[in-house]
Amino acid sequence: MPCRSNKELNTMVISAKECTAKGKVADYIPALGKANPHDLSIAIHFPDGECISAGDVQKKFTLQSVSKVISLALVLMDRGRGYVFERVGMEPTGDPFNSIAKLETMAPGKPLNPMINAGALVVTHMIKGTSVADRFHRLLSFIHELANDKTINLCEEVASSEFETAYLNRALCFFLKQHQIIDENVEELIDLYTKQCSIEMNCLNLARIGLVFAMDGRDPQSGRQIIPIDVARICKTFMVTCGMYNASGEFAIKIGIPAKSGVSGGIMGSVPGKFGIGIFGPALDEKGNSIAGIRLLELLSKTYKLSMF
Amino acid sequence: MPCRSNKELNTMVISAKECTAKGKVADYIPALGKANPHDLSIAIHFPDGECISAGDVQKKFTLQSVSKVISLALVLMDRGRGYVFERVGMEPTGDPFNSIAKLETMAPGKPLNPMINAGALVVTHMIKGTSVADRFHRLLSFIHELANDKTINLCEEVASSEFETAYLNRALCFFLKQHQIIDENVEELIDLYTKQCSIEMNCLNLARIGLVFAMDGRDPQSGRQIIPIDVARICKTFMVTCGMYNASGEFAIKIGIPAKSGVSGGIMGSVPGKFGIGIFGPALDEKGNSIAGIRLLELLSKTYKLSMF
Amino acid sequence: MPCRSNKELNTMVISAKECTAKGKVADYIPALGKANPHDLSIAIHFPDGECISAGDVQKKFTLQSVSKVISLALVLMDRGRGYVFERVGMEPTGDPFNSIAKLETMAPGKPLNPMINAGALVVTHMIKGTSVADRFHRLLSFIHELANDKTINLCEEVASSEFETAYLNRALCFFLKQHQIIDENVEELIDLYTKQCSIEMNCLNLARIGLVFAMDGRDPQSGRQIIPIDVARICKTFMVTCGMYNASGEFAIKIGIPAKSGVSGGIMGSVPGKFGIGIFGPALDEKGNSIAGIRLLELLSKTYKLSMF
Amino acid sequence: MPCRSNKELNTMVISAKECTAKGKVADYIPALGKANPHDLSIAIHFPDGECISAGDVQKKFTLQSVSKVISLALVLMDRGRGYVFERVGMEPTGDPFNSIAKLETMAPGKPLNPMINAGALVVTHMIKGTSVADRFHRLLSFIHELANDKTINLCEEVASSEFETAYLNRALCFFLKQHQIIDENVEELIDLYTKQCSIEMNCLNLARIGLVFAMDGRDPQSGRQIIPIDVARICKTFMVTCGMYNASGEFAIKIGIPAKSGVSGGIMGSVPGKFGIGIFGPALDEKGNSIAGIRLLELLSKTYKLSMF
Repeated sequence: MPCRSNKELNTMVISAKECTAKGKVADYIPALGKANPHDLSIAIHFPDGECISAGDVQKKFTLQSVSKVISLALVLMDRGRGYVFERVGMEPTGDPFNSIAKLETMAPGKPLNPMINAGALVVTHMIKGTSVADRFHRLLSFIHELANDKTINLCEEVASSEFETAYLNRALCFFLKQHQIIDENVEELIDLYTKQCSIEMNCLNLARIGLVFAMDGRDPQSGRQIIPIDVARICKTFMVTCGMYNASGEFAIKIGIPAKSGVSGGIMGSVPGKFGIGIFGPALDEKGNSIAGIRLLELLSKTYKLSMF
Repeated sequence: MPCRSNKELNTMVISAKECTAKGKVADYIPALGKANPHDLSIAIHFPDGECISAGDVQKKFTLQSVSKVISLALVLMDRGRGYVFERVGMEPTGDPFNSIAKLETMAPGKPLNPMINAGALVVTHMIKGTSVADRFHRLLSFIHELANDKTINLCEEVASSEFETAYLNRALCFFLKQHQIIDENVEELIDLYTKQCSIEMNCLNLARIGLVFAMDGRDPQSGRQIIPIDVARICKTFMVTCGMYNASGEFAIKIGIPAKSGVSGGIMGSVPGKFGIGIFGPALDEKGNSIAGIRLLELLSKTYKLSMF
Repeated sequence: MPCRSNKELNTMVISAKECTAKGKVADYIPALGKANPHDLSIAIHFPDGECISAGDVQKKFTLQSVSKVISLALVLMDRGRGYVFERVGMEPTGDPFNSIAKLETMAPGKPLNPMINAGALVVTHMIKGTSVADRFHRLLSFIHELANDKTINLCEEVASSEFETAYLNRALCFFLKQHQIIDENVEELIDLYTKQCSIEMNCLNLARIGLVFAMDGRDPQSGRQIIPIDVARICKTFMVTCGMYNASGEFAIKIGIPAKSGVSGGIMGSVPGKFGIGIFGPALDEKGNSIAGIRLLELLSKTYKLSMF
Repeated sequence: MPCRSNKELNTMVISAKECTAKGKVADYIPALGKANPHDLSIAIHFPDGECISAGDVQKKFTLQSVSKVISLALVLMDRGRGYVFERVGMEPTGDPFNSIAKLETMAPGKPLNPMINAGALVVTHMIKGTSVADRFHRLLSFIHELANDKTINLCEEVASSEFETAYLNRALCFFLKQHQIIDENVEELIDLYTKQCSIEMNCLNLARIGLVFAMDGRDPQSGRQIIPIDVARICKTFMVTCGMYNASGEFAIKIGIPAKSGVSGGIMGSVPGKFGIGIFGPALDEKGNSIAGIRLLELLSKTYKLSMF
């Protein structure tokens, strides 16, 4: 990517911002409803340490579903592929992220993939540790390492707001418990899961994490292999096949970058071998993806020919 | 029905008992797994007070899904038809009793009918009272009146066994709560629901309750109208269209008696204007109905031409 | 039913007619779209030969789904219960009448019941005969006998309009053929089925047919048993559990009369042991039932306490 | 990929062949059932014209679902993206390739993607031409160009075998016609579609076609751009997200090469910028993919690090 200029990036942000008018901030989690729908910020982190950005890059947002990729990486490291994929599948699904119906029709309640809520709950369930606090601490430390920023923490307000209203996730958990996919106390799992979703950062942090995935798990600054190569590869594959909810197929065709979005409006992108992207734009399209964030990625992908395909 | 002889009934019980070999006692609720699969008892209660019976009629069993008809009657009396049917539908469904999939595909999470678990949970949710204890007491008093037996109570062992393992019902509750069909604390509702299911009686009691429904809600002994006529009629209609899980259609064709079964092996039957039936036979067929109980009802229906149709 | 007066019936028709404004004539079959939405006529046929009626009773309409009950009776007589119910189930379903989804999820493509299109196509497939013409002739003769009217015939215009546009029924047929539920040429089956649906009569005829079912298959005038008792009983049972599409449950509760409706606006009712009803009111509700026809039946059922339950 | 040796490839073929014992030749199309389950052949075609291979590379097989990618490319060239994606979606689905259920639940009958049968039928429907013969001729000419081999033709025996038994595809077509996604004569479309599926070639041909997709649509020998770059890219994206039926997600994770399989046992692979792969191994796994073919691709991908992710 030849673009290493904040100015060029800024022009694209201004153009992409126009479509925020057509989007809507998520309001099913009350604390998220307070976001400004017109916000749009982006950071691009290169392996040589350079970072370009545009928009109000200091604005913080919670990870929400973006966290699903990170917890998956941790759990694959903790448990190994065999263990993990006995409990959660690898197939994309045409259903919405919060669907429960397919758990019933597919044989014995195993979620289709780790990017839908049911699968992500199973992943979080597999995070090792002696308590919710301990498991959360391990996940947070992992994120500190990926982002190279130890100040990252959860947003208590969002965490408790989500914990209170996570009825559907509790339904999924009990369904999974009935089918013996998970065996932990549901309230504890929901506590850990909503904390995971409520980890807060800005787009600079997110771009840094995306960079580590892009570089096959290696921290390009320290040279340390934070995530094993094959784990990073698996995560990027899921980002392509199921990273953008049930708009993943269209995203792969139009944009072709491994990416994961969240309902807070965050998107993490990882252009293999090249750079990481962090975006925050809370106005969502009807599938739950940042409407301006997707537009911005489309502009970037077309301008700089970033599609993997 | 000309049969008023224990001996004739006994011959039929002996014949029907043969098929218990092909059935299986429910074991997903641990406490139910202890039942003797070869048990089969029946009582028939006439409006003139006569009661004929066969088998070990003193053996007790828990109501399980049979209780769904009784709680529906209570709630229709408590809340009125309009209120109740805004929250639960009237349509039979070809799905298994514990299915969650259709809650998702049908508009806004309203269960199809009060005889599937999702619908029954909504019904129990509507039982009036100041606390779980108070609401359970009201239901139990209603049953005392219907059965004319104040000694009936719940089986604590079954209640706590079910409470501990009711993961799927909790999943249904949280799904319903997400869709604002119910708004109460899920653990409290599960507590009340499992208590309701664990109310214990023998087939003589059950026949007495069936008789009240058969007589349009009137207690033929005291002459008191315990249930309003239209409520009794609604309950009998549901017994025909959805009383025997997803074997209700076949049951209506082969037997044609309003009836409701439970996984403990109980069946309550109400032959309109004629008599009530109570059956206990814990060996179940694959749809969850008492295998010998259905066989016995088929013999009765054919011999005495009991079908309504 | 004490009502034996055209005048009383006429008052009810006038009252029920008001709701035609909220209904809509079926237009997916072009020839049906020409009906007058404000039409409403009814005939009630008693076993003693008396017939009361109201509205323009000479107006003709095609049977459409009402024919499903009649072809089922013929096929049960032709083939026997065992043969028939190996090929079509007995269970109501909460799905729309033209749904194909459940054929896929339920084991091997057997339709749930003979009142949904998939099941009705299997039934028509089982009508015996050497050719489509011969099979249609047998069905028509059967209808002549039931209605005691040899002038009844099909409406060619509707038949060919339906034959041309029956894409969904062809989809169902090919699905059934794939799963070896049927093995005949699809175009021939569609030809026979659309002819069956296009048989035309007035509400007097339909009431006469409903009467035969009400009288357990016996023609009360000639004394002849046109349909065996158990076949008539099976048909009435299906009319209760699945006769009014996916509004059957509600109809059973509110009205409680065995009845079968069609998208042309016809409804045939059979009050067991009492009388037959024929209704024509082409304005339909959203489930595909005659909106004023249902209202009229509700008035009749409440006024004269006709519910079986 | 450093491997340019037939010998090395041969060793892998021998190793992969072992798992043919666990697979099964497709027999739902009678003519396919005659294949030898122990066959396994592969060809790899490089842009410089070199081609390495192993196994009986002269053995011919029909394209079946592999043809879906090629017809998609042709139709995107014929009609443009906008037109095509109004009629068929871009999303992977967790359902089997021949599923009809989701057509019903998703809004108005639009197939989820062009790799499931419903979507592929819509694609074939869009092939331009004045007659079936003309449209087939256009597709075949396109394949001649891609494979650089004008002798390729259809296998009449397979074509007529498939045409006769394609009941499920006819069901899908009529469903699509009902929902106005297609408007052509179903028998004609099935004729064209089964001809497309019955185009016969060997793995050398298939590798050559895979190479053109790998080189962004450019024929590396003639230098001609046979397929526009963006069309080639779209095709490769679908190969990743939905190319291996409902095992595509697992394939992407384990192997990470754009690939499309068919029930005849063919697999076409396109390693972007590097080479094309053609495989023939008729023993299938339970998802319908060549069991030894997948094993062979896994060996290749691991040995030479071919995953895109």
